[in-house]
Amino acid sequence: MGFRVAVVGATGLVGQQVLRVLEERRFPVEELRPLATSRSAGRTVEFGGTTWEVGEATAGALAGVDFAFFAASGDVSKELAPVAARAGAVVIDKSNTFRMDPEVPLVVPEVNGHALARHRNLIASPNCSTIQLVVALKPILDRFGLEQVVVSTYQAVSGTGAAALDELEAEVRAGVEGRVHGPQVYPQPIAFNVLPHCDRFEAEGYTLEEWKLVRETRKILEQPGLAVTATAVRVPVRVGHSEAVWLRTREEATVDDLRSALQAAPGVVVVDDPGAGAYPTPLQVAGRDEVYVGRLRHDPAVPRAFWLWIVADNLRKGAATNAVQIAEALVAAGAPSRH
Amino acid sequence: MGFRVAVVGATGLVGQQVLRVLEERRFPVEELRPLATSRSAGRTVEFGGTTWEVGEATAGALAGVDFAFFAASGDVSKELAPVAARAGAVVIDKSNTFRMDPEVPLVVPEVNGHALARHRNLIASPNCSTIQLVVALKPILDRFGLEQVVVSTYQAVSGTGAAALDELEAEVRAGVEGRVHGPQVYPQPIAFNVLPHCDRFEAEGYTLEEWKLVRETRKILEQPGLAVTATAVRVPVRVGHSEAVWLRTREEATVDDLRSALQAAPGVVVVDDPGAGAYPTPLQVAGRDEVYVGRLRHDPAVPRAFWLWIVADNLRKGAATNAVQIAEALVAAGAPSRH
Repeated sequence: MGFRVAVVGATGLVGQQVLRVLEERRFPVEELRPLATSRSAGRTVEFGGTTWEVGEATAGALAGVDFAFFAASGDVSKELAPVAARAGAVVIDKSNTFRMDPEVPLVVPEVNGHALARHRNLIASPNCSTIQLVVALKPILDRFGLEQVVVSTYQAVSGTGAAALDELEAEVRAGVEGRVHGPQVYPQPIAFNVLPHCDRFEAEGYTLEEWKLVRETRKILEQPGLAVTATAVRVPVRVGHSEAVWLRTREEATVDDLRSALQAAPGVVVVDDPGAGAYPTPLQVAGRDEVYVGRLRHDPAVPRAFWLWIVADNLRKGAATNAVQIAEALVAAGAPSRH
Repeated sequence: MGFRVAVVGATGLVGQQVLRVLEERRFPVEELRPLATSRSAGRTVEFGGTTWEVGEATAGALAGVDFAFFAASGDVSKELAPVAARAGAVVIDKSNTFRMDPEVPLVVPEVNGHALARHRNLIASPNCSTIQLVVALKPILDRFGLEQVVVSTYQAVSGTGAAALDELEAEVRAGVEGRVHGPQVYPQPIAFNVLPHCDRFEAEGYTLEEWKLVRETRKILEQPGLAVTATAVRVPVRVGHSEAVWLRTREEATVDDLRSALQAAPGVVVVDDPGAGAYPTPLQVAGRDEVYVGRLRHDPAVPRAFWLWIVADNLRKGAATNAVQIAEALVAAGAPSRH
């Protein structure tokens, strides 16, 4: 008894993680269809102790599946996700394509799992930097309200994809060997550098990544007027996004109040004993499924203002784990039915 | 005709840069006394095409000098800077020791050069992350007022010193060679990681680096009540601190107003054409003496709120260049007199 599961983009960084997370969490996969664009079809992936050949992602290949995880480009999602959804699959899409569609739930299960109730076979999983932010903001919002959020990100290279990880490694290796490796994925070297530039530039001088953080946070938290703003920065870290977050609550709160709220929140781990060197870092958090919060403190100059330092694995909770958790929540709610 | 100049900490990263900047800017050095603690005395440094032996920093070695640049530890400054000042030297101290002493001017020449007028032979140069912040804030403060500043830093490893740079290189090289190099300078690896931990932890969960940013900014800008707060983060960059700064002005302003103010400000270079890939990064800015500002934009959700991205070479404008500029300003004002 299980589900027919397609993973579109199965050879990519996120697709690979979806396979790992499905295994680790023992998601009831009866039949696996690892799919990719024609460029990567024919390669193999490992799942459940078996080697699987990757098929080409087409409407035919998606026919009859129960769950389709889309972890490919926005173009692939745009073309095939609605086709798969109409054919009866529950599509969980990691791309930006449908996230702001009012008909499409944008879901982080521990934050707004209730939004799944009104899905029409197409559910969007948020951007990596949004997911970890809203997981930490939600318990604060619920208890104290949120008046304002200011985010600066420290985003890992794996968020850009495998080619960017290769570029970081090539630049580092070239440096050690006394050579220069010119950047191709990024406009400037990422090794030993930081780039205030994630995704393309859009309106008002903000990048798409920064707009995603703003718009998706408002939609997930159901706070359409929330004052939230961001600067998104790429740093030479392989896996694990970090965020320095300054926020103001609506109600009075203390640091201990915030700590209690976060400690009680699902999916959050508070690591906050700086005197003992305890704060989360991306190297520590890579491979984990929770959102880690540390450096909790009050801003002494502004009433009801606080800092958080939020770190999560961008490929897992920021992508694959969240997508699988969406599927698990749907299964727990009884749909689709198993074969 | 020139000055007798001592550089205390001449073998360190900042001391070396002081020597380079004195050369480059043709500071009128009649006699150089490169000094260091007993551990480094006897080593040699290059200056003006000559090799100089480094003497031990003692009261005797500092007797009779006109300018003493202190770029050693706080302990060395605490012991010897007052001695040198009493003996008649103008001491320009890079350490944290005297910065918040109300009797000691804390100076960034293009921001508060007027504070030099009341010096008593001891002038403090601010922390690296403060200097680049106030250079960019000052023109905004002067034209539009400042109500609030929220800073997240991306600080280079050279800010910690030569041993930290060696540690970053060793970790990177070990990684390329498939080995592990355990951290010694930092509590966790800095290669491929970010650490929300610069300097030691102090009151209210803030690090000393974060408190420096707050207190020094208020003193230099002469805004004792300014709401300014920071999260300081170490990133695997060799040279060049970056800061994502969200601020609110008192008066109405547009992004173009801020850009004009910054373009007209001494020591500021605006690099802000993101569509053409133009924004400052630490790799670009290393070796330069100006403060670079980009990513100017309005926060659409909050009146009079803006973002800046500020980058500067932490060893030059953040340390050596600022110290030499203080000496130049004093020379321009006519004191001390040349020999």
